[in-house]
Amino acid sequence: MEITSNPKLENLPKVLLLGPIRVYTLFESEFSSHFQFIKCNDSPLPLPHFLATSNATAMLIGGHIPITACDVLDHLPSLRCIVTITAGLNHIDLAECCRRGIAVTSAGDAYSNDCADFALALLIDLLRKVSSVHRFGQRVSAEGHYCLSHRLKGKKIGIIGLGSIGSRIARRLEAFGCTILYSSRKQKPSVSYPFYSDICELATNSDILVISCALTNQTRHMINKQVLSALGKEGVIINIARGAIIDEKELVRFLVEGKIAGAGLDVFENEPYVPKELSAMDNVVLLPHAAFITHESFRDVFELAKGNLLAFFSNKPLLSPVTDV
Amino acid sequence: MEITSNPKLENLPKVLLLGPIRVYTLFESEFSSHFQFIKCNDSPLPLPHFLATSNATAMLIGGHIPITACDVLDHLPSLRCIVTITAGLNHIDLAECCRRGIAVTSAGDAYSNDCADFALALLIDLLRKVSSVHRFGQRVSAEGHYCLSHRLKGKKIGIIGLGSIGSRIARRLEAFGCTILYSSRKQKPSVSYPFYSDICELATNSDILVISCALTNQTRHMINKQVLSALGKEGVIINIARGAIIDEKELVRFLVEGKIAGAGLDVFENEPYVPKELSAMDNVVLLPHAAFITHESFRDVFELAKGNLLAFFSNKPLLSPVTDV
Repeated sequence: MEITSNPKLENLPKVLLLGPIRVYTLFESEFSSHFQFIKCNDSPLPLPHFLATSNATAMLIGGHIPITACDVLDHLPSLRCIVTITAGLNHIDLAECCRRGIAVTSAGDAYSNDCADFALALLIDLLRKVSSVHRFGQRVSAEGHYCLSHRLKGKKIGIIGLGSIGSRIARRLEAFGCTILYSSRKQKPSVSYPFYSDICELATNSDILVISCALTNQTRHMINKQVLSALGKEGVIINIARGAIIDEKELVRFLVEGKIAGAGLDVFENEPYVPKELSAMDNVVLLPHAAFITHESFRDVFELAKGNLLAFFSNKPLLSPVTDV
Repeated sequence: MEITSNPKLENLPKVLLLGPIRVYTLFESEFSSHFQFIKCNDSPLPLPHFLATSNATAMLIGGHIPITACDVLDHLPSLRCIVTITAGLNHIDLAECCRRGIAVTSAGDAYSNDCADFALALLIDLLRKVSSVHRFGQRVSAEGHYCLSHRLKGKKIGIIGLGSIGSRIARRLEAFGCTILYSSRKQKPSVSYPFYSDICELATNSDILVISCALTNQTRHMINKQVLSALGKEGVIINIARGAIIDEKELVRFLVEGKIAGAGLDVFENEPYVPKELSAMDNVVLLPHAAFITHESFRDVFELAKGNLLAFFSNKPLLSPVTDV
């Protein structure tokens, strides 16, 4: 177990660091002036052994390692606080954390603007053929119809999940003159956009579907054959949420058979695997789970994670506790 | 001179068609049910001869042929109306048309939403590295900093030309949380964004410059060495207006030497020529003058051009006359 050996730093509170975390790497020196990190990656021990000997009360995590009873929590009886730098929480067994009295903090809204921007980036790129025409790859098609793309104004956009990201996507799209429809777990009384409890009905009434909801047991493969059929031949789908919300095999089939018009995908069902059929398609924009990755969001998330850890160790209220378990 | 030989159509008003016009090609059958087109492209005669024998009173044009006294107007003494399908009018000698009593109609606002959307497309693409990371071309850089891009919110955007397109760009950017600054021929009393009469000062205060003004003698090479220096190393420039507003040689030099951060270019100084240095750069997005090319704008422009021609031949007020000569 590697612990910083500088004697001045040995009095700093200990934080368990699980897995590679880019926010940690980018802000390592700033983090290390506040905390002493126990780094899983530096240890030759198998994970359960490493965890059991750490005696950690706080843990900083990313999204790569599942935080469940048998994988992690059983080996960390002293753990009281998990600080995740992710906005999505599908990798954490929140009910189990709650039962054990372990507080969890998330990235809160830190990525929301950037994820909303990225949804717009994919949507505009597809409608206006930016990636496919960039550097004039398709300058002249057989019919001379290169670049003949589609206007945003007037398009009906069905947003699935009108939370912190989805509502920001809606606000941006309104400025382009798009019409917003939405679905979510519950209708939002504060919102005047038409609400659809049925995803198929939302898809039928939308030109474009934008997925910005959490991955849960309820939303896994929510975008299935029926929804894609309802979206139809002219329809476009954007996913900046989680890959498994779409039945990816069906999506690939619909794209290959020309049964929907295009897709903008930042997430995939089994990342980093991307179905190879998609790479050859001009009506598909593929990004490697990059929606949240900006200089600014990483700085914000660093500040938030640091603030949460400082609050935990000084028994102050956490900055972004997860309460919706 | 080719004239449609269907006797029923011979009574239709005659319109001179100058050069290849995609809006005409797309809507040829609809156009041809209202007018009889005299097509320059079908004629073996040299242009001056062809024009002189056409006796045209109305002419439908694109942006490729300069409409000046010696090139065109001297050969068309009967001409009374020019309907251009372009929004930009830099190819027409408007003063000369005015002197000869020739009315000119433009595409008006028909392309404004699409051009504004395209400026956003280029801007988001550059800031969020969509084209450069699309299909994971740059998934892993040496420092592992692939995809680490920039947030839109909080960026200061200097818009040059706050007309029909520029004001739509501003509205969209506000929804992303950007701060708008602008310059234009005159300060707009109805607008609260900070106004800069000096372009260098605008560039100094902007993170990103967006060019959406007309090309005139005053704006040609307006973006020169001084302005690019003022924009600075972190600055980005977007041009969806006309290539010659930028001193392209200087722009290339600034990009090659890393003295500005990136460029999104839909227009070039000597189209279709594109400086070859630009093609190899990851911080440059290149599109082939495609901002205005959507199914929807072409339909709108067709309707507008048809409406203008019908109005001219029935002595009614033109729909989109150019008055600002």
